[in-house]
Amino acid sequence: MSAFRVEVRVMPRAALLDPQGQAVEHALHALGFGEVARVRMGKHLVLEVTAGSRDEALARARAMCDRLLANPVTEDYDLAVDGGAAR
Amino acid sequence: MSAFRVEVRVMPRAALLDPQGQAVEHALHALGFGEVARVRMGKHLVLEVTAGSRDEALARARAMCDRLLANPVTEDYDLAVDGGAAR
Repeated sequence: MSAFRVEVRVMPRAALLDPQGQAVEHALHALGFGEVARVRMGKHLVLEVTAGSRDEALARARAMCDRLLANPVTEDYDLAVDGGAAR
Repeated sequence: MSAFRVEVRVMPRAALLDPQGQAVEHALHALGFGEVARVRMGKHLVLEVTAGSRDEALARARAMCDRLLANPVTEDYDLAVDGGAAR
């Protein structure tokens, strides 16, 4: 078994309004950053998943996203597995 | 001028407790995902920055992080510029 570092990015779906992102955009404009647009804000999680292989770690992380980490109605996620430090 | 898509990852510093990450870890364990550990939770932002070059977009995004997006005492950030769709 190895420990895999999994990076999870959870973002509001493109079709949906993103009030958090809009608030950040307005604040940036107010600070003088007029060149910024289309700010979207989501979550970033880093997990350490113990599994027999990279693919297994990815599958387990995907299950975690489906069960808890992402809201399937309002959010999209993507995953990246970093590597397996043997344990 | 081109529009560059900048990805910003803001994470709690490694030395600090991360109560949000801990809450997620406990919830995952309660759901039967015993193989997960060291959950850290932060923010992910996607910005569109209009600039003359990739480096300029990066420098402006860095300034936005220093001014607003990240708390320099408790958070670390990193940036990636995706590309320049000419505008």
